Amino acid sequence: MSDAYQPQPAHKFTFGLWTISNRGRDPFGEPVRDPLPPNDAVAMLGDVGAWGVNLHDNDLVPIDATAAERDRIVREFKAAMQQHGVVCPMATVSLFTDPIFKDGAFTANDPQVRAYAVQKTMGAMDLGAELGATIFVLWGGREGTETDACRRPDDAVKRLREAVNYLCEYNIAQGYQYRFAMEAKPNEPRGDIYMSTTGSYLGFIPTLDHPDMVGVNPEVAHETMAGLNFTHAVGQAWDAGKLFHIDLNDQNPGRYDQDFRFGAANPRAAFFLVKFLEDVGYAGPRHFDAHAYRTEDYEGVKAFARGCMRTYLILKEKAARWNADAEIQAIVKAAHGDGANLGPFSADSARALANREFDRKAIAAPGLAYEQLDQLTTEILLGVR
Amino acid sequence: MSDAYQPQPAHKFTFGLWTISNRGRDPFGEPVRDPLPPNDAVAMLGDVGAWGVNLHDNDLVPIDATAAERDRIVREFKAAMQQHGVVCPMATVSLFTDPIFKDGAFTANDPQVRAYAVQKTMGAMDLGAELGATIFVLWGGREGTETDACRRPDDAVKRLREAVNYLCEYNIAQGYQYRFAMEAKPNEPRGDIYMSTTGSYLGFIPTLDHPDMVGVNPEVAHETMAGLNFTHAVGQAWDAGKLFHIDLNDQNPGRYDQDFRFGAANPRAAFFLVKFLEDVGYAGPRHFDAHAYRTEDYEGVKAFARGCMRTYLILKEKAARWNADAEIQAIVKAAHGDGANLGPFSADSARALANREFDRKAIAAPGLAYEQLDQLTTEILLGVR
Amino acid sequence: MSDAYQPQPAHKFTFGLWTISNRGRDPFGEPVRDPLPPNDAVAMLGDVGAWGVNLHDNDLVPIDATAAERDRIVREFKAAMQQHGVVCPMATVSLFTDPIFKDGAFTANDPQVRAYAVQKTMGAMDLGAELGATIFVLWGGREGTETDACRRPDDAVKRLREAVNYLCEYNIAQGYQYRFAMEAKPNEPRGDIYMSTTGSYLGFIPTLDHPDMVGVNPEVAHETMAGLNFTHAVGQAWDAGKLFHIDLNDQNPGRYDQDFRFGAANPRAAFFLVKFLEDVGYAGPRHFDAHAYRTEDYEGVKAFARGCMRTYLILKEKAARWNADAEIQAIVKAAHGDGANLGPFSADSARALANREFDRKAIAAPGLAYEQLDQLTTEILLGVR
Amino acid sequence: MSDAYQPQPAHKFTFGLWTISNRGRDPFGEPVRDPLPPNDAVAMLGDVGAWGVNLHDNDLVPIDATAAERDRIVREFKAAMQQHGVVCPMATVSLFTDPIFKDGAFTANDPQVRAYAVQKTMGAMDLGAELGATIFVLWGGREGTETDACRRPDDAVKRLREAVNYLCEYNIAQGYQYRFAMEAKPNEPRGDIYMSTTGSYLGFIPTLDHPDMVGVNPEVAHETMAGLNFTHAVGQAWDAGKLFHIDLNDQNPGRYDQDFRFGAANPRAAFFLVKFLEDVGYAGPRHFDAHAYRTEDYEGVKAFARGCMRTYLILKEKAARWNADAEIQAIVKAAHGDGANLGPFSADSARALANREFDRKAIAAPGLAYEQLDQLTTEILLGVR
Repeated sequence: MSDAYQPQPAHKFTFGLWTISNRGRDPFGEPVRDPLPPNDAVAMLGDVGAWGVNLHDNDLVPIDATAAERDRIVREFKAAMQQHGVVCPMATVSLFTDPIFKDGAFTANDPQVRAYAVQKTMGAMDLGAELGATIFVLWGGREGTETDACRRPDDAVKRLREAVNYLCEYNIAQGYQYRFAMEAKPNEPRGDIYMSTTGSYLGFIPTLDHPDMVGVNPEVAHETMAGLNFTHAVGQAWDAGKLFHIDLNDQNPGRYDQDFRFGAANPRAAFFLVKFLEDVGYAGPRHFDAHAYRTEDYEGVKAFARGCMRTYLILKEKAARWNADAEIQAIVKAAHGDGANLGPFSADSARALANREFDRKAIAAPGLAYEQLDQLTTEILLGVR
Repeated sequence: MSDAYQPQPAHKFTFGLWTISNRGRDPFGEPVRDPLPPNDAVAMLGDVGAWGVNLHDNDLVPIDATAAERDRIVREFKAAMQQHGVVCPMATVSLFTDPIFKDGAFTANDPQVRAYAVQKTMGAMDLGAELGATIFVLWGGREGTETDACRRPDDAVKRLREAVNYLCEYNIAQGYQYRFAMEAKPNEPRGDIYMSTTGSYLGFIPTLDHPDMVGVNPEVAHETMAGLNFTHAVGQAWDAGKLFHIDLNDQNPGRYDQDFRFGAANPRAAFFLVKFLEDVGYAGPRHFDAHAYRTEDYEGVKAFARGCMRTYLILKEKAARWNADAEIQAIVKAAHGDGANLGPFSADSARALANREFDRKAIAAPGLAYEQLDQLTTEILLGVR
Repeated sequence: MSDAYQPQPAHKFTFGLWTISNRGRDPFGEPVRDPLPPNDAVAMLGDVGAWGVNLHDNDLVPIDATAAERDRIVREFKAAMQQHGVVCPMATVSLFTDPIFKDGAFTANDPQVRAYAVQKTMGAMDLGAELGATIFVLWGGREGTETDACRRPDDAVKRLREAVNYLCEYNIAQGYQYRFAMEAKPNEPRGDIYMSTTGSYLGFIPTLDHPDMVGVNPEVAHETMAGLNFTHAVGQAWDAGKLFHIDLNDQNPGRYDQDFRFGAANPRAAFFLVKFLEDVGYAGPRHFDAHAYRTEDYEGVKAFARGCMRTYLILKEKAARWNADAEIQAIVKAAHGDGANLGPFSADSARALANREFDRKAIAAPGLAYEQLDQLTTEILLGVR
Repeated sequence: MSDAYQPQPAHKFTFGLWTISNRGRDPFGEPVRDPLPPNDAVAMLGDVGAWGVNLHDNDLVPIDATAAERDRIVREFKAAMQQHGVVCPMATVSLFTDPIFKDGAFTANDPQVRAYAVQKTMGAMDLGAELGATIFVLWGGREGTETDACRRPDDAVKRLREAVNYLCEYNIAQGYQYRFAMEAKPNEPRGDIYMSTTGSYLGFIPTLDHPDMVGVNPEVAHETMAGLNFTHAVGQAWDAGKLFHIDLNDQNPGRYDQDFRFGAANPRAAFFLVKFLEDVGYAGPRHFDAHAYRTEDYEGVKAFARGCMRTYLILKEKAARWNADAEIQAIVKAAHGDGANLGPFSADSARALANREFDRKAIAAPGLAYEQLDQLTTEILLGVR
């Protein structure tokens, strides 16, 4: 392998503890890999060159652990992190695994479940803070329905708001300085999940008590499941100053949640994403929320993890090449014309605009050469340019 | 037909001028119906019992009409509206038909196109105001890409914001008192359209200069094309106070924009939508943005229009029946448990919550009877209960 | 509940042992229901009024059972079937649960796996025959890929053919008189599954050594996942004489495999399916391959099972009503015109046809009243007609 | 551009006359390009280096042309073909543009429409034969429904069979020696189209009177619209000896029919397709059924056409490199194990197989290194290996 594509700490590549520890169980099959203890997972991440590890509370600490067990586990995990040179920039909470969440967590009909979900999240925030995390992801995987007969969807939004507001206050009271990153998904494991797209959360956040504390964690697979252009969603989040975290993986549209190796389903879509992140200077972690095929043993898991990072770096190099390509830049420039922007509104400017004459046919006539532009992009992607 | 399902003005049923005038042209076939002049369309709407008509500027006034022609057309159209007892609550603008918009309108790369798009929208606002419209819909059907090589998606968002801000100022300056309703769509006619979901617009609106003036116009088909739960999107818009308008039709997921008669693809999804609109007391127009099959003549178009309204009223009746069903209400109530809400955050409440003991297994144990709830809902829908 | 919708043996309603025993485990959550022993499941099926039970080999006999254990289990199961008045018309084999099938079964790259898959299927055929099954379903859930780098797709087809040919010979040699029913699915649990649609199997079967012995088992959810019209697929299978079995459930397009209660996602699609099955006189089992929501306990599972059968019977009644509706029948009849069919080819008929004059405009002119037809259908479905 | 990617006649690259002449009209917009006369289109194809041109009858001859006009047009077109060194390997018929086909063609309810559709197809066969075509494509774009109330789907299959049987006889009687290639599509322009996938046609063909005369014409976009793996469908068609023609373009799943430049949506999927076609030695035309973006003038159309061919050749080169890569070949070989095939059935072999002991855990244990295999494939695709 070329040295140019070796991961470095500055790349901020991270993996969820649950990703490399995924045992290959699926709805139709039993696990194919033995359990991978958390500290061994950290060792593997150090080995493949990752910068960080992220985790749900119960990826590390069993849900029924005593306080003493929890403290021992955390202590040993921190030692493993230090030993293998791995940091923990993000923490999250499992509000979906245990049967108690079968009707949702923050939006469940039963107030006891909602209260427990908040309590559990507070505990996960405590854990993450202890490990050094400054980003806290909230994925409401069970916040949804199979039948909308069970509750009104606006009630679900209200309950979600109440919970997030409470957690923001807890963040302040504890002095944790977390930034929350909310993660959307359209469906699975629920028939439909509330807040189905990144846009939904961008609309939800301004209704919170502390909107500045909350942003989004878009995931390639989740937006792509609904056949949406992921880079467009990331672009809107960036424009709104809300791109607090990102989940990289891959997915074919209109299917179950595949969580493939980054770039494994559509390298072209991955290219535009990497280009955007690098062009705007996104400085947060590049988190891979994916897992190895069920055909793999742990050597395969390592190949999977290395592949995620390697493909990112290959695409980053191509993005730089694209930016430096004179023919490409000329096409983009030509399409932008040379007119002035609209400028601010005034009675005068509006009157002038209303009276301005446009030669529609002349303006519409020139071809924009986007076919050529896209073909040149394809050739850079395929490495023949 | 039963009298119970006859449309009344109080139902606020409206149709786009373009919907009943649709001539059945598609990408693979020529028109099957002769042109229907606008005034004849208004007569048809009066005939079938609709309350209102909506229009794009060029549905009524040809794009190259002189000022005098325009005035005559508008005058005659107002007369027709009055004659047939039809009002015009909503207006919009075509920013997609003319070749000048081939690269978008507000987000096009060429500043001349962007300026022309704003000018044209101002003219459409003038027209709508003259017809009495108080809602102005903006659908950015060409605001998108086939290749993301042509511009950065966050630049598109910025340009869109500039245009909408300008138009809000124009609204104020002219004293029009419009409320803008922004309409999302994931794709078609562009490969990908920016602001792909209603959620995207709910996130965009708070970044505007006059967020109170701008809401959303969710459309059944557009959200359903992406396989998203439409009622969830409407619920979030309602919660945010942004449900300024709504486009009713029907659609199968993962396909071209079908714009079927309301309830024609999935009456169950339509039921939950009607139930939500009626439960929350949505008071705006029920606008049908749909068109008749290409197999129809204008008698078929009338059957189509009558069917849209009739199905809405049938489902409204079923929603009332659902609300009055004791067995259904008992299941919903039981699922909600009897615990207290979380309440406001305080150091004390947080400490109490952290220390509260939850019997996870006991809380998780009861079945929620949602299968029975959904079956009873199905039986109300099918009219056997 | 009305007596008209009570299941009777003549309705041939069956459930997979795995369906009512489903414990509500999903990719993101632990089981919510305790194990339901097979004999208790049979009792439940008798209780809710089902006619039959279907099973995979390992639904009943653990994969590592000794011959003696197997025989005892089978003996006791047969006693339970007799006690509860439940028959076993269909058997199948699990070629997906065990890790040995991680790369497929009949199409796996490793010949040992392929041989084991055939051996295991022979054993499942033995088991089914002992229980009285005359239909043997083959679902190749793991016959697929995440990356097409691993094998050529035509090699997979060849291997599949070799295995099915072998099993047909075994069927003959043992005198089992099974009819095989092959079940397609586009994806999940594999990234892509070979033989993705019912049509694929209709194309595969004529290439077998014993095509008459093999038909299809279309499943609502599997065809609907790909957004395809299920009734069209069933119609083609029926036309080909290949509708040997059918799996009823429900599903929203473009998602994970939901296996919802029959009619729970789209009752309109379910109506056209039931109408077709009843119109053509399909005489095989109506098998529900679905499971209860994860929110349910076993009372909810019973409600789920009862709901499947009840909705089928409601829709069957509506189909009869549709057939008897004079206005509906008149529209259909009118659309069919009164011309003669093409008739057999001959030099004379071809010459006559080539010279026949058609008045295209006149033929195209009449509206076909399909909007009215579909609206009337909707009103029958909704029970207001 | 590198000479290695220049199209040559031996590559058999063809374009539909309708593809480069596409004027950029869509459901929401007017044409952006002036009409391109057929003979000019042929000149353009010669200019960009295509081998052949395909056509619908009415791409060349207007539907209302007199016999004399038709003969003149054909004569001049043949001259243009000769002048520009372009051949016509495939012809087809438009059974979708004219309003007469609004309810279908071969499957329409009105027998007059069905008869006219056969007459028109016979005329298109005459035309194609005169131009030298030996492949005749049948795409039933209007053979479908918006509501299944209008006919039974098995009746549609019967009518389709009657028509194709008739046309096969006509082919024999006229001595044309056509091979028919049937093209599937799931939806658009109809709500649902019969024979939705290539598999459907593979199942239909064996029910014809002359199955040997009929094969399939799979299209990338049509299979991909339904989210299906196109290469799998092509693989099954190849295995069945039915790959008579192929339509190359690109498409994102779950959308309107995009018909993008080959490789423009997902170059990875395109790679596996090209690799398959080259590996098996497919000798037919590589037909591009795509069109340029609506942003383009005719220079852009040329760039589009050149890009289709160029990307094919780039991917073909990569396929050869993949086949020659030792590390890749070693992984594939290792996954195949070293056991023997099943062999033919006999009582002895069955008994031996039934008694053979398999160590399931040992067989399942080895990782298959498919993550590494796919990553190496990705790196060849991206040109860094």
